[in-house]
Amino acid sequence: MDPNASGLAMRLAEAGQSHLLQFWKKLNPEEQANLNLDLQGMDFGEINGFFKKAMGTSSSSKQEKMDTRMEPVPREVLGSVTRDRESLKDWELAGLHCISQSKVAVLLLAGGQGTRLGVSYPKGMYDVGLPSHKTLFEIQAERILKLQQLAEQKHKIKCCIPWYIMASGRTMESTKDYFSRNNYFGLEKNNIIFFQQGMLPAMDYNGKIILESKGKLSMAPDGNGGLYRALGHQGIMEDMEKRGIESIHVYCVDNILVKVADPAFIGFCLKKGADCGAKVVEKNNPTEAVGVVCKVDGRYQVVEYSEITLATAEKRNTEGRLMFNAGNVANHFFSFSFLRDVVQKYEPKLQHHVAQKKIPYMDAEGQLIKPDKPNGIKMEKFVFDIFQFAKTFVVYEVLREDEFSPLKNADSQDAKDTPTTARHALMSLHHRWVLNAGGHFIDENGRHVPAIPRDGAGGSVTDDGNRNLKDGTDLPIKCEISPLVSYGGEGLEELVKGREFHPTLMIDEKGVHELVKNGV
Amino acid sequence: MDPNASGLAMRLAEAGQSHLLQFWKKLNPEEQANLNLDLQGMDFGEINGFFKKAMGTSSSSKQEKMDTRMEPVPREVLGSVTRDRESLKDWELAGLHCISQSKVAVLLLAGGQGTRLGVSYPKGMYDVGLPSHKTLFEIQAERILKLQQLAEQKHKIKCCIPWYIMASGRTMESTKDYFSRNNYFGLEKNNIIFFQQGMLPAMDYNGKIILESKGKLSMAPDGNGGLYRALGHQGIMEDMEKRGIESIHVYCVDNILVKVADPAFIGFCLKKGADCGAKVVEKNNPTEAVGVVCKVDGRYQVVEYSEITLATAEKRNTEGRLMFNAGNVANHFFSFSFLRDVVQKYEPKLQHHVAQKKIPYMDAEGQLIKPDKPNGIKMEKFVFDIFQFAKTFVVYEVLREDEFSPLKNADSQDAKDTPTTARHALMSLHHRWVLNAGGHFIDENGRHVPAIPRDGAGGSVTDDGNRNLKDGTDLPIKCEISPLVSYGGEGLEELVKGREFHPTLMIDEKGVHELVKNGV
Repeated sequence: MDPNASGLAMRLAEAGQSHLLQFWKKLNPEEQANLNLDLQGMDFGEINGFFKKAMGTSSSSKQEKMDTRMEPVPREVLGSVTRDRESLKDWELAGLHCISQSKVAVLLLAGGQGTRLGVSYPKGMYDVGLPSHKTLFEIQAERILKLQQLAEQKHKIKCCIPWYIMASGRTMESTKDYFSRNNYFGLEKNNIIFFQQGMLPAMDYNGKIILESKGKLSMAPDGNGGLYRALGHQGIMEDMEKRGIESIHVYCVDNILVKVADPAFIGFCLKKGADCGAKVVEKNNPTEAVGVVCKVDGRYQVVEYSEITLATAEKRNTEGRLMFNAGNVANHFFSFSFLRDVVQKYEPKLQHHVAQKKIPYMDAEGQLIKPDKPNGIKMEKFVFDIFQFAKTFVVYEVLREDEFSPLKNADSQDAKDTPTTARHALMSLHHRWVLNAGGHFIDENGRHVPAIPRDGAGGSVTDDGNRNLKDGTDLPIKCEISPLVSYGGEGLEELVKGREFHPTLMIDEKGVHELVKNGV
Repeated sequence: MDPNASGLAMRLAEAGQSHLLQFWKKLNPEEQANLNLDLQGMDFGEINGFFKKAMGTSSSSKQEKMDTRMEPVPREVLGSVTRDRESLKDWELAGLHCISQSKVAVLLLAGGQGTRLGVSYPKGMYDVGLPSHKTLFEIQAERILKLQQLAEQKHKIKCCIPWYIMASGRTMESTKDYFSRNNYFGLEKNNIIFFQQGMLPAMDYNGKIILESKGKLSMAPDGNGGLYRALGHQGIMEDMEKRGIESIHVYCVDNILVKVADPAFIGFCLKKGADCGAKVVEKNNPTEAVGVVCKVDGRYQVVEYSEITLATAEKRNTEGRLMFNAGNVANHFFSFSFLRDVVQKYEPKLQHHVAQKKIPYMDAEGQLIKPDKPNGIKMEKFVFDIFQFAKTFVVYEVLREDEFSPLKNADSQDAKDTPTTARHALMSLHHRWVLNAGGHFIDENGRHVPAIPRDGAGGSVTDDGNRNLKDGTDLPIKCEISPLVSYGGEGLEELVKGREFHPTLMIDEKGVHELVKNGV
């Protein structure tokens, strides 16, 4: 295990990374063994190549150029749940048919830890405080189960939707353990396939790998675009091929409203003959921090909000809408053959993006320094980097309030995308399902609650009387419907039509319940 | 002062309100004097009439009927800052010309106390924590001052925009005192005219006025629609006529972004020959708690969010937008002659709206009871109740991010419309003004900040790499521009073009400053 004897020292010297062994003699045998193991597994030539390529174009005046090259998504490649209502049913049927033939897989990007949420376990295990206390993983699992049932009922044929879950080195064990402890939420164990995202070292601006302690490299996942490399390295494409998968729905774990394997989205992509598609929500505010799907030099891509000028972000079309309004929500469709080509041919050619970061490091004296300015880079690829290779790319616009509410941050008074906003988004959606199925809610005083509930109805007499303005806290009615009962609002009429409910209303596979009131 | 001797007891008996004297003998002389004074000033016949009229139609199945009667605002009466860009300059010039002739007044609805904000003083005196610590009143005063200057510069003529401020009994003294202590923020004292909103007693369901203590009636302002009665009773219309006012801009104190006497809005209304106009923002989410301007039975009105079914709220037009999307923001235009007709002829005929409330009351034993269910009503009118009388009604749609951010609630993790959201909205607008005038911002590391700033740039290496999704806290760049420097973004090029700034940037009449960083 002596680095000189094993040839490791030589490999490091050739790669200009000898400093990684500078504290070798101060490590105890176990630390030496771990460091040796980490270093032996690394291809320094490749890493140095990534660095060189990534840094080569990172400092350009990209932004100025981008603005003149961008074009909005043309109407003919756009499907919209609000503008193409007459086609929705057809798309949904097409998607459901494909699902019934077990040709659709879902692929979950779940490499993220809940760092910004303030927890150390995988985000998918987070409980946002719903009445049921279901986690994100649990909700998604139940949606898959329900969708299988819907496809089976419709087509009288047994089917399955395989679920590929990409975890990172940090989240893999706890994720697998969590699924196992919960009996895979009723899904077949064999149809949930875990695979691991790669990691890359953080590097300083000179291309030196950074040590976070004397015997440990500073490592980070290689971005959600690490998906493609992981798919190739871990035999996932072969597994898909063996199962006869033709369409893959890729999404990110943090969206509590995600319509996993959404049949309408899949059907739309199939009917359009698309090899790649992106689900988007309308961006309404020019300075909303969301990337937009658009054409650049004739090819589709996501332009990040940090890449465009305000003038471009504020551009509007003749309808008065933002010209670049296709807000990317990490929710994509791939045909199997396109995904295979991406994994084998396209993605390896792409350079990494560079994110400048403040990276804690060991200085030459062995002191851990926490810099207050960025001192190095993290290299990552994004899942949407490969849109440019699509031959037939389509965009599918859905309603934010129905389909997108990501969980990003811990609750605080100026944070967005928190457990509270996620919980409210889900309960508001389910409340609307109940109303649209003909149910009603009554408040504690026995009065009908209006469709748009207002906090403070029956408030004190000292209100200022400006009821024409929106009322601050439009808290949702407490209402939760199990995905096992309804995937997208269907099948509720027989349970709720003409009935009156007191919140908290829970509808699950055991029936319709009203919970005793308690503070949430 | 004996109620029998003065005839008060008789009047009360005739009005069925004798219970108001039930604790008379237990009051001390001062309390008796106060109660006597309050009661002597009241017209019980009128109050009983209000109650009867208001209750007469409050319990109907209004909602079901409303849905079938609503029509959206037709395009021909709609002006839009996003869809009518080519006309904006003309409208603005027309408005500015009218202002320069001193024919435009502004009228502020400032009766509200900051109850929900958690303060006991008038909302207009609230400091949302801007770098300058200006209050809402101060910001509005400075906008008026600046607009006068702009009109004077343009037309080489001295002009004034009279400011009518409606306070309530509770806020009048502190409001006047605040303006006086601050030398009317540079405005002429004579051109700020305070007048008082009326109050009405709270009543139980049988029409009995409620006592909040043994010698005191439970009173509340009569809604922002109390404006019209107050205008008539306090000689305000005569004052306007004397000054030659032709156009009046009415707005509510709580909107930090309000464009007081917005020349483009006024110009649009003038060019359309409107007697009444409403500024609106687009409602994007069906369940947003905002009233919408629409036509009902051929006449314009605001339909409150509690009056419509979800199905109607979710209706969309062929563009995919909400059909009823003209979100009312309490920001209106009136011609003088229309306002005079409203005050004299139309408004007195309108019945009050009924708000059921939990009203603390004295029981027969003289105990104060705080009910946990609504036990009575508050009667109020709304400022928009009179839209129906307009002969030429127009609607003017503006951008929410530019013009509407109301202050309603104290900061908390699930509140909207808080000091934090108001502060951020103003700083974000001013940040955009600087960018559009050619300025740039640099962060603490000397790097250009993108137009859409992201919190956590230079964040830790443990981020999850999902940069395609929006980042939770898109905190604005700290930047504030005094209204004395720019009313609506104009005139900034010479100050910022080609320059680089570190936040906090302050631009005021003394120049351009960068403040030393401190936590906000």
